[in-house]
Amino acid sequence: MADSRSSHSSRSTDKHSQSNFDVDYVIDYTIPPNESAEAEASFAQLIDALSSAGFATEVRPGRTPSSLLIFVKLASQSLLQSQIHRARVQDWLYGVRPDAPPAPPSPSAADGGTNDKTGDDSMARYFADDEPVTEAERLRLAYMLITLPRNEGGAGVTPGSGQWRFVKRVFPLHDGAFNKRWIAEWSQKYNLDEADIGRIRDRFGERVAFYFAFLQSYFAFLLFPAAFGFAAWLLLGPFSWLYAVVNCLWAVVFFEHWKMKEVDLAVQWGVRGVSKIQLPRPQFKFEREGVDPVTGEVVKVFSPYKRLARQLLQVPFAAACAAALGSVIASCFAIEIFITEVYNGPFKQYLTFLPTVLLTVFNPTLTTLLTRLAEKLTEFENYDTHDAHQASFVRKVFVINFITSYLGIFLTAFVYVPFGKILVPYLDVFQLTAQQFTTEGKPLPTKSWQINPDRLTKQVMYFTVTAQIINLATEFIVPHAKRKVFKTVEKVQSEFSEKSTEYRPPKDQPEEADFLERVRDEAELEEYDVTIDYREMVVQFGYLSLFSVVWPLTACSFLVNNWVEARSDAMKIATNCQRPIPWRADSIGPWLDALGFLSWLGSLTSAALVFLYHSNGSGIPDGSPSEIKGWALLLAILFSEHVYLVVQLVVRGLVRKLDSPGLQKERRERFAMRKRMFERMAQTDVSAAVGGPGVGGGEVLEKITREALEDEARRLSVAGEGTPEKMFWLRQRGAGEAIQVGRALIAQVRSPERRPDLRPLTRRRQATISSIDSFS
Amino acid sequence: MADSRSSHSSRSTDKHSQSNFDVDYVIDYTIPPNESAEAEASFAQLIDALSSAGFATEVRPGRTPSSLLIFVKLASQSLLQSQIHRARVQDWLYGVRPDAPPAPPSPSAADGGTNDKTGDDSMARYFADDEPVTEAERLRLAYMLITLPRNEGGAGVTPGSGQWRFVKRVFPLHDGAFNKRWIAEWSQKYNLDEADIGRIRDRFGERVAFYFAFLQSYFAFLLFPAAFGFAAWLLLGPFSWLYAVVNCLWAVVFFEHWKMKEVDLAVQWGVRGVSKIQLPRPQFKFEREGVDPVTGEVVKVFSPYKRLARQLLQVPFAAACAAALGSVIASCFAIEIFITEVYNGPFKQYLTFLPTVLLTVFNPTLTTLLTRLAEKLTEFENYDTHDAHQASFVRKVFVINFITSYLGIFLTAFVYVPFGKILVPYLDVFQLTAQQFTTEGKPLPTKSWQINPDRLTKQVMYFTVTAQIINLATEFIVPHAKRKVFKTVEKVQSEFSEKSTEYRPPKDQPEEADFLERVRDEAELEEYDVTIDYREMVVQFGYLSLFSVVWPLTACSFLVNNWVEARSDAMKIATNCQRPIPWRADSIGPWLDALGFLSWLGSLTSAALVFLYHSNGSGIPDGSPSEIKGWALLLAILFSEHVYLVVQLVVRGLVRKLDSPGLQKERRERFAMRKRMFERMAQTDVSAAVGGPGVGGGEVLEKITREALEDEARRLSVAGEGTPEKMFWLRQRGAGEAIQVGRALIAQVRSPERRPDLRPLTRRRQATISSIDSFS
Repeated sequence: MADSRSSHSSRSTDKHSQSNFDVDYVIDYTIPPNESAEAEASFAQLIDALSSAGFATEVRPGRTPSSLLIFVKLASQSLLQSQIHRARVQDWLYGVRPDAPPAPPSPSAADGGTNDKTGDDSMARYFADDEPVTEAERLRLAYMLITLPRNEGGAGVTPGSGQWRFVKRVFPLHDGAFNKRWIAEWSQKYNLDEADIGRIRDRFGERVAFYFAFLQSYFAFLLFPAAFGFAAWLLLGPFSWLYAVVNCLWAVVFFEHWKMKEVDLAVQWGVRGVSKIQLPRPQFKFEREGVDPVTGEVVKVFSPYKRLARQLLQVPFAAACAAALGSVIASCFAIEIFITEVYNGPFKQYLTFLPTVLLTVFNPTLTTLLTRLAEKLTEFENYDTHDAHQASFVRKVFVINFITSYLGIFLTAFVYVPFGKILVPYLDVFQLTAQQFTTEGKPLPTKSWQINPDRLTKQVMYFTVTAQIINLATEFIVPHAKRKVFKTVEKVQSEFSEKSTEYRPPKDQPEEADFLERVRDEAELEEYDVTIDYREMVVQFGYLSLFSVVWPLTACSFLVNNWVEARSDAMKIATNCQRPIPWRADSIGPWLDALGFLSWLGSLTSAALVFLYHSNGSGIPDGSPSEIKGWALLLAILFSEHVYLVVQLVVRGLVRKLDSPGLQKERRERFAMRKRMFERMAQTDVSAAVGGPGVGGGEVLEKITREALEDEARRLSVAGEGTPEKMFWLRQRGAGEAIQVGRALIAQVRSPERRPDLRPLTRRRQATISSIDSFS
Repeated sequence: MADSRSSHSSRSTDKHSQSNFDVDYVIDYTIPPNESAEAEASFAQLIDALSSAGFATEVRPGRTPSSLLIFVKLASQSLLQSQIHRARVQDWLYGVRPDAPPAPPSPSAADGGTNDKTGDDSMARYFADDEPVTEAERLRLAYMLITLPRNEGGAGVTPGSGQWRFVKRVFPLHDGAFNKRWIAEWSQKYNLDEADIGRIRDRFGERVAFYFAFLQSYFAFLLFPAAFGFAAWLLLGPFSWLYAVVNCLWAVVFFEHWKMKEVDLAVQWGVRGVSKIQLPRPQFKFEREGVDPVTGEVVKVFSPYKRLARQLLQVPFAAACAAALGSVIASCFAIEIFITEVYNGPFKQYLTFLPTVLLTVFNPTLTTLLTRLAEKLTEFENYDTHDAHQASFVRKVFVINFITSYLGIFLTAFVYVPFGKILVPYLDVFQLTAQQFTTEGKPLPTKSWQINPDRLTKQVMYFTVTAQIINLATEFIVPHAKRKVFKTVEKVQSEFSEKSTEYRPPKDQPEEADFLERVRDEAELEEYDVTIDYREMVVQFGYLSLFSVVWPLTACSFLVNNWVEARSDAMKIATNCQRPIPWRADSIGPWLDALGFLSWLGSLTSAALVFLYHSNGSGIPDGSPSEIKGWALLLAILFSEHVYLVVQLVVRGLVRKLDSPGLQKERRERFAMRKRMFERMAQTDVSAAVGGPGVGGGEVLEKITREALEDEARRLSVAGEGTPEKMFWLRQRGAGEAIQVGRALIAQVRSPERRPDLRPLTRRRQATISSIDSFS
């Protein structure tokens, strides 16, 4: 906490060359030449809107004449602080915080502008002492204020849509000093701890912090399968059932542990349950405005049945993905087999690369197309909140990635090798085709068909080592290089245009020039999308869970990869992307389901792989399906799956019993809140007089009981005789008499012959007479 | 609500013969003759404790000399009301209520006894107007006050354990008038509605009400499979895959619907989340006292590892149950097959009943033994809360009942019929045995072995019709008859003892005699255990889910049975059992898991049954396992299970989107609470001045922005030139100038050749000069 505060205060005190000039957000405003009149009108509205919402604005030219940079900052501290207080109260009301935030100390200080300074100071001290405001919180609230509808106090600016279609982007500026320190620190550290993640959280918000926390947790958990996998590789060889069991168990433990860890972090960061506070999606198109039957507010309604019907399009979408990607992969696969294992003619050394080339051309193209289709489809489903939209999109992305990543191995493992013999007729087609390329009636040389059992291992190794390295390169190095090239090109172009008189960009003030140049650079960077990073890790987890039994070293490769991954992702955020808007999150969201699915599917594939490939001592099946007993394979899968599900239940039960710092914190806060409330109650409440706890309470009660009885007796005497009900309760006056009567009755048990010596009375007038008489 | 209030007030106004004399609880106190001294001492402590906790007490003799009846009522209304307020505040703090209960109107009214009456009245009016106090709430709080530890304000009486081992039971008295009305109403109604369940809730608490709500919901849902089953029975015959699919789908929908309904009811009844407020179990034995690291309170600790080790005993326990019950069932099964289908000798007509006799003797005996063992085991696991104890016990009971209920059918369906041919060698043993009973060297007549394919259908029909009727009889009629017989015997005995001089029970006051006689009767009734009723329904659901594909009329039988069941259960509570203590609950608890398990298992058994028995057109398999393709059967099961799981996910997703009265109520309450809080905030908060919503806010902000800037300019002029950061934000003063600058820049795009005509200024002293100059 001390750290985050100091880093916050550094924001305004560090006056080195990398200062951000107190800018909260930069708005990248584009002016299409054919719409410049509309852009101008919209620009004026934009500045007005921002200024009414409480922002100070400055305008500077962008890099090209068709872009403006609008610099925005919250005009006053008191506005920020009232926003913070408001947001914290909202958190409390939605159950994110257990307790209400204390009221600000001097609300009157912000009434006018004259004493703004002193108000600011006392407020700042108050916030800093109690709960420091992190940079992430400040930036998030500023962004909320920019995008919130005007009737909720915001500027109502929704980048890219409708009236604001000229607003290309709204982005905060990188903190150069922090980024430098961050990269330097992480590249020297072997292991990242919670403080490191906490610093990310304070800067980039919980959404990004959750990714790094997940990555770190996954990395730490990988140590075990890496060590065990190495041992298994040495001692057990591939397709070991022991490795498969341990691997599945590990996946379960990791998954359940992360679910707990996630909650723990959310509580520690004070964001547990923020997903309940839904951000409305500005792109949401409503059919009609209705009145909420519950709250009486006007709400925008879109028919849920219509949405459901649209969601059903996911099924043909998934089928289309499977068909399109599947046919590409299967064809490349078939071509590859043909060339490497059947074809033996000329140019073989070049043709070997043909399937790879085809895959590298078609696969990303198709993936991009399908991803864009997924985007369209999600847009069409028309969700009213960000989270629902994102979750739906992630589901579709997962389907695409599942097919592109795993289908090849599935084909090899469960079609090519076991059903190889059945494939022979189809391969005859290949041979026939090959024989058509006859030169002077002589058939092209073809090898005789043989199943290549190494294929599976090679394929898994490719995906777990080579593909990971390629991925790292394309993710980090390629954009970097691309940007360098573009910049050079641009420079040359601008030098050329400078010579022409067509457009001369206005000169910057010398003291701002460096800063503006940096901002213009940042404006050209891509937006950071944490989804891509999650996707990569989840796909990787899938290889480990589904196929690592083929090659137990998988986890070792991932361990090395992920160490680099965490650093390269940090580098990516710091240098290759715009600074992300620090959104909150209370979990890794829809990816959790994907992890659970892959972990479960792993129990099926591992069992099937072990069963199919382990039976032969050499680990090499001969590929004839008749010898593999179908019922035994299915029984193995069925058994493995159900053992998995039972183990998952047990692990879940055990993990739930563990304590964690976050849960302790939550319990402590809730307990403190309850205690305070009860204490406050005890001071003013009737319970203090009547039912108060402690030894002293008894005497008070005794008195009251007696008083109540006397009171009742008095009322009774007024009403005359009293009903039987009244009489019933007056036979024994107070505890003493009840004990007396009881003792007499008990005495009868002890010595039944000695009956209590009590004179019979005909009818009693006074209730005060010992009621034991009534039993004579 | 109006109803519950009137029924509450009727408690004190109805003065007919069935009045309960305002008694809250009756304590049945036993005095064992050999411990009468201890019992006497403990009795005095008991009265003292009750009286200090605020109870009025009356003692009367029990039916036998070794029992006393202690009548207990809350001494004053104000005590009750302070308890209610306290409990409601606790509910709020635990998140059960969305909002705090309003403070009582006149806390000073309860300070003394003199103005108790007026205080009572105003308090009573307050509670009645806002949230009426139901009888269930009153009784629950009174019971809590009896059992709560003394340091928490209660009497600390824990029936049956330690110091209070002479306290046999603490029970409330039946409300005869209500019960009569209740039974009369229900027996004339076809369908029970929410108001009926609500009345149960007001009298017997949520735990009992949830049972009836579940029963009613299940009954309503049964209409569909009954109708569809009847149609399937007419048109499709047994083992129809269509029926199996529809049945599984129905089970999923019912299960998911109930999960939602449960939450809905809990919210409507204001008990959502009460399971978080755990009642400590007085029988809990702690190892040591520790200090809670979070709350700092002294807590009783029992090592969780020790408990885990003890919980592991559940595995051998389940195995023992399976072995014991399984061997009994399997032996009886074997004997039955032998006698009905192999044996053909003398006494066959009598011997046919032998297995049934054996089962009826051994099965309940073993079940009782195992249930007692389960109780012991659960006791040994030593849970610290009631709910955990109950959940663990229910799990074990479910295992026992699963075996006794379904194992027989499982054996027939999946062992006897399909593997009949393999059983032949074992049946030879039977024949050999039979042949040993030779009379004069002639072997006994035995039939040749044939599998009886009707067996399965007959067995399912037995369990779904005959067994249900028997169950109903043993549950309701037998205890009734038993009690009648016992009472006659007792009467004869007491008449006999009256003639002897050994013990003469003391005569009751005439006006109390009827009442006391009734209480003595109720003291002899059994405690109502809702677990038994749930068990019955869950087992019934299991037959429907697992085996109804064998005989599609199953649901029709259950529909009729459950109509009677609801009424007979009501009768049971009203006449055969003591009035239950009105505990709260927010769900049907551990039975929900059992329902989910049975529903899931149904997808497996249905697929297997259809696959095994449908293939032959006649529905009669020939029983040879070689002809049943193992892999196809397993594939069918695997497929069915996964379709089931996917359908479950989809249905869950859909059900979650439904709205319900309870959820609406919750949303309304939470919304009202938030709105009130925000309004309160807006009145006192800085946000009202700075960031307040509405159109007016903009002007205020504009002013402040400008003021803030002027303020900054003033500070700047004091500090001299100012830093580049300061200068940056002062180039454009306010929104107007920013718009001006932007417009000029945009104009360049429109007509690039016409550059803005702005005089270059060397260096500006004053920030007030339009900052557009800086771009010249």
